[in-house]
Amino acid sequence: MSDLPHLPLTAVDTPADLRKAVMAWRRAGLKVGFVPTMGALHDGHISLVELALRHCDRVVASVFVNPAQFAPGEDFDAYPRTLETDAAKLAEAHCHLLYAPTARAMYPEGFALKVQVGGPSEGLETDFRPHFFDGVATVVAKLFNQVRPDIAVFGEKDYQQLLVIRRLAADLDHGVAIIPGPVVREDDGLALSSRNVYLSQDERARAVRLNEILKDFAQALERGDDVATAQARALAKAANGFDGVDYVEARCAETLAELPAGPIDRPARVLGAVWLGKTRLIDNFAADPA
Amino acid sequence: MSDLPHLPLTAVDTPADLRKAVMAWRRAGLKVGFVPTMGALHDGHISLVELALRHCDRVVASVFVNPAQFAPGEDFDAYPRTLETDAAKLAEAHCHLLYAPTARAMYPEGFALKVQVGGPSEGLETDFRPHFFDGVATVVAKLFNQVRPDIAVFGEKDYQQLLVIRRLAADLDHGVAIIPGPVVREDDGLALSSRNVYLSQDERARAVRLNEILKDFAQALERGDDVATAQARALAKAANGFDGVDYVEARCAETLAELPAGPIDRPARVLGAVWLGKTRLIDNFAADPA
Repeated sequence: MSDLPHLPLTAVDTPADLRKAVMAWRRAGLKVGFVPTMGALHDGHISLVELALRHCDRVVASVFVNPAQFAPGEDFDAYPRTLETDAAKLAEAHCHLLYAPTARAMYPEGFALKVQVGGPSEGLETDFRPHFFDGVATVVAKLFNQVRPDIAVFGEKDYQQLLVIRRLAADLDHGVAIIPGPVVREDDGLALSSRNVYLSQDERARAVRLNEILKDFAQALERGDDVATAQARALAKAANGFDGVDYVEARCAETLAELPAGPIDRPARVLGAVWLGKTRLIDNFAADPA
Repeated sequence: MSDLPHLPLTAVDTPADLRKAVMAWRRAGLKVGFVPTMGALHDGHISLVELALRHCDRVVASVFVNPAQFAPGEDFDAYPRTLETDAAKLAEAHCHLLYAPTARAMYPEGFALKVQVGGPSEGLETDFRPHFFDGVATVVAKLFNQVRPDIAVFGEKDYQQLLVIRRLAADLDHGVAIIPGPVVREDDGLALSSRNVYLSQDERARAVRLNEILKDFAQALERGDDVATAQARALAKAANGFDGVDYVEARCAETLAELPAGPIDRPARVLGAVWLGKTRLIDNFAADPA
């Protein structure tokens, strides 16, 4: 939207410095977009920044590996941290501000808040990571209040998270429009993920099956196959191809409610979470009725 | 702060109209204060509006009887609703904007949010009204995001609520300064409360005992009496004077943590909740070490 030349990337690490920078933009009448990330940026994240730039004059990207959304035993410590490379990629993408707060700045002594979103958070990820969406909703509610953006972009790769955030922004009256960014994939269809670096060469070769199985599942639904039949078939293939399957399911695309029996009669979404060794992969596809 | 003449009271009932009004003030560089209420306004509420006016150029008061903070069987239906009188009192106090949203506007279809604050919400009111502070925190978080005030004023009459809101505003990064307003009392010391209208003539006469017992309790602590001894004495007097006692306790004034044994060694607060017939009264006093 802006005709100004691209500015160099500024980096801040406190809510106060962030506010000062965003305030100045707002006073100048500029529209502000926000892309929250956990860093370890790949082309999927960059596509979200580019999407935000198409809607806004200024874009803030945050990098914060949020301890509150990892359970004990999950990969919080192992999660890749690559802040310098992240900053370089954001600068190259013409992002205007990098906000990388410390855990202490986000969760000071005495912190006692929990934000819970029901509705779309029920089932799927929550059955396997029960604290996950509380952690996500709490940190995103804080980030929205710190940044006060006009829009925020979230990737469809985390489809359930996208719906939870949309509910959060509406229910908490953030006044932020939530824009979904399409999944970015490797040539063989594997969805980009910061966790793909965990995969061995053999696991990487097998990982491609997740998007193949889910795409077949979505196409079967679009052809008019019965939901339960198509789901059982997809689940059997996933059980065969992976070291573990958390879920492979079709849900209502709008609410994530379970679908009625028979062929789909509304926009649906097929979602899967599977394991390769110690690595958990998720992916999803749209399935629209004919 | 403003030298402008007093403006007439404007009333709005949707978040969109509220935002438009506040936005215009903000663009004009005016400082905005907020006084959230459940209506049935008395001089205690008006003192909060006056306090806000001393800190700000423009003051918004909300009137919303929040269903989420009443449990089934509590007095949600009976709670006094006096919107016209409230508006007249606010206008007389030179409040600038009355925001009186409907329950539908605050909790639209599909609403799925809960904001929980731990820390100061533990014990006291929560032992007897377990859903109360979740309901308060959720609606206040929404109202803060709708109004986006610079400051908000909360009465010390609801002392535990004041500390919960202070924690909420800090933890959720609202950027709102929370200003406490002193308790306003009748000539005999009874704290003003919208629920005082429930009291029969006989109950009203007995109600004065609550502030007397708590004031004696606070004075005993200030004299250096042992906390447990003074508390037992106050509790015995309350059990004698009322139809039921939820709690009569001394706590740390800052955190509401329990106090160590012996005389107080830090600013304390004595708090009480008692019953007269079907009416529940609360009150509190400061007790500072010599």
